[in-house]
Amino acid sequence: MSDWEKNVRKVTPYIPGEQPKCAHVIKLNTNECPYPPSPMVAEALNHGNKEKLRLYPDPEAMELVSAIADYYNVDNNQVFVGVGSDDVIGMAFLTFFNSDKPILFPDITYSFYDVWADLFKIDYITKPLNQNFEIMKEDYMGENGGIIFPNPNAPTAVEMETSDIEDIVRENSDVVVIVDEAYADFGDVTALELIKKYDNLLVVRTFSKSRAMAGMRIGYAIGNEKLISAMKSVKFSYNSYTMNMTSIDAGVAAIKDDAYFKKIVSQIIETRERAKKELAELGFTFTDSKTNFLFAKHNSIKAEVIFEELKKKNIFVRYFKKPRIDNYLRITIGTEQEMQQLYDAVREIVDMQSD
Amino acid sequence: MSDWEKNVRKVTPYIPGEQPKCAHVIKLNTNECPYPPSPMVAEALNHGNKEKLRLYPDPEAMELVSAIADYYNVDNNQVFVGVGSDDVIGMAFLTFFNSDKPILFPDITYSFYDVWADLFKIDYITKPLNQNFEIMKEDYMGENGGIIFPNPNAPTAVEMETSDIEDIVRENSDVVVIVDEAYADFGDVTALELIKKYDNLLVVRTFSKSRAMAGMRIGYAIGNEKLISAMKSVKFSYNSYTMNMTSIDAGVAAIKDDAYFKKIVSQIIETRERAKKELAELGFTFTDSKTNFLFAKHNSIKAEVIFEELKKKNIFVRYFKKPRIDNYLRITIGTEQEMQQLYDAVREIVDMQSD
Repeated sequence: MSDWEKNVRKVTPYIPGEQPKCAHVIKLNTNECPYPPSPMVAEALNHGNKEKLRLYPDPEAMELVSAIADYYNVDNNQVFVGVGSDDVIGMAFLTFFNSDKPILFPDITYSFYDVWADLFKIDYITKPLNQNFEIMKEDYMGENGGIIFPNPNAPTAVEMETSDIEDIVRENSDVVVIVDEAYADFGDVTALELIKKYDNLLVVRTFSKSRAMAGMRIGYAIGNEKLISAMKSVKFSYNSYTMNMTSIDAGVAAIKDDAYFKKIVSQIIETRERAKKELAELGFTFTDSKTNFLFAKHNSIKAEVIFEELKKKNIFVRYFKKPRIDNYLRITIGTEQEMQQLYDAVREIVDMQSD
Repeated sequence: MSDWEKNVRKVTPYIPGEQPKCAHVIKLNTNECPYPPSPMVAEALNHGNKEKLRLYPDPEAMELVSAIADYYNVDNNQVFVGVGSDDVIGMAFLTFFNSDKPILFPDITYSFYDVWADLFKIDYITKPLNQNFEIMKEDYMGENGGIIFPNPNAPTAVEMETSDIEDIVRENSDVVVIVDEAYADFGDVTALELIKKYDNLLVVRTFSKSRAMAGMRIGYAIGNEKLISAMKSVKFSYNSYTMNMTSIDAGVAAIKDDAYFKKIVSQIIETRERAKKELAELGFTFTDSKTNFLFAKHNSIKAEVIFEELKKKNIFVRYFKKPRIDNYLRITIGTEQEMQQLYDAVREIVDMQSD
């Protein structure tokens, strides 16, 4: 070992879902959107001025910021944009979680939270979900250095009510509470309205799911202008120009095509509701998903077996070999056709296993 | 002040050069390339598959990594890519500079180094350049927690010889030495060859200057595979997918069009050498620039006056109101035509001031 290796930061990185390289795969493992982005996004990229790429982009990404601000009817200085919601949340951890007290998040949740905490040496305590995989608001009422949870939660797909979120935010006015709304467009609840009342609430969202643009890496946060200003200072101390020109252009185009956005989101919700019926008939139980995925277990076949068998049939779903959830699958909602192939494949697996 | 504000990270952000919004401006203030990117970049963006944008990009950005590795004849696992060299260097600070001893860098240098050090609470000592604005290698021979300097240095434009770099790297085998080669394509020296001999040397480069793609945000580091692997672990603990699909596609296209790259770089060098003659005749002295900018002072007119007067004529150069360099201008090399307009404008200012 070289001497310099002693001072290398020790981390255990997050492991994202597989990105299989072969073409004929049904990919229901990383909660991507099964539909392409708005045609206006392609238009913006095709017709964007390529000569201007020699120049630095606007460090504030103001065109994108103001498109988002207009959409949600908030001020430009209430919006922060980043390279996916991972960049936004990572920046928020670095900006806000500098207390001596531990931060809090659920035991079963987005598995990046503990990775960021470790990276930035932030102490944390995880709070167990209840038996129905629900976040118990009472667990977040003690002293702490900050709070983060997704709503709906992932990979459980369970949604918390606005009144419960409000209770958590109100009772923790001395710390920043981050609600990670990556999947909120597929559900019934958002904490966005609470921003007007609470200066300690940061709501984070992404273009990767409901706006079908995981490949462009765009995330954003909305909150009180003091929160956003603090995040910008930290961001400008790390990298002045995080959003490249194509992200800004494509992001603006996506926001502007609201009809397309609403169409694909409602199509995914429709497919999800049908999937609940189909998979129930095949012996699955699941939480009442308010996301673009189902969190499902089978009444007789082990999740890991189904996961492996589906993979053999070139259908990729997500399986977490972790305590409490190691008999569950996280199945992204695909197109109607992809889901039909999933039902057929599951039926074959069920028939084979019961032989 | 809200209670949560007590735990906000305190930082003094880097302030990038102005990005004037009006159209008819000669922009010689942020060291951008005066020429557009390779036509193959426009091609790649226009004809790239837009449907795939719904999917996450390759977290390893392997197409881009391997295009860079091939170009420099190193292994894929010796290359790290990021959102501009700022992202790459910031990640390197977080990964490697975790010693109790202070890191070292020059007193006059890229003004982001102290910002990153403050952000990540890394102790540092700056070492004064000599009277000729040269880095003195002897200053970097004591105990330290790591070393970073640009070569050529900025904003001084002065280049250090390979043998001096090698002395620093060899004498500091217990820490990581980062050579920031943002401008090296315009000079005669690179530390890349030393990577084979020293496992503690990281060389950082960017697409923002010589590859005319500041707007796309692409930077990279080349080093021993142990260094790169450590940086990747930290990167994957912050954001799995930093490089969006358009950056990957555009970056690959730029690397492949080597003829265009060589053409614009040699054109900029030619213009720079002519600029040295023209500006000398107008009363300027400067360091022997090996970059795409000149670091110049006038023999009778104060730099700040020239800076303000040029601005009135819609010509933007960079002025740093800092000790030791507050009578210098950093002038980016533009097109021949832009430089001619600069010479004419300077002549008017000189004539006016000597009236």
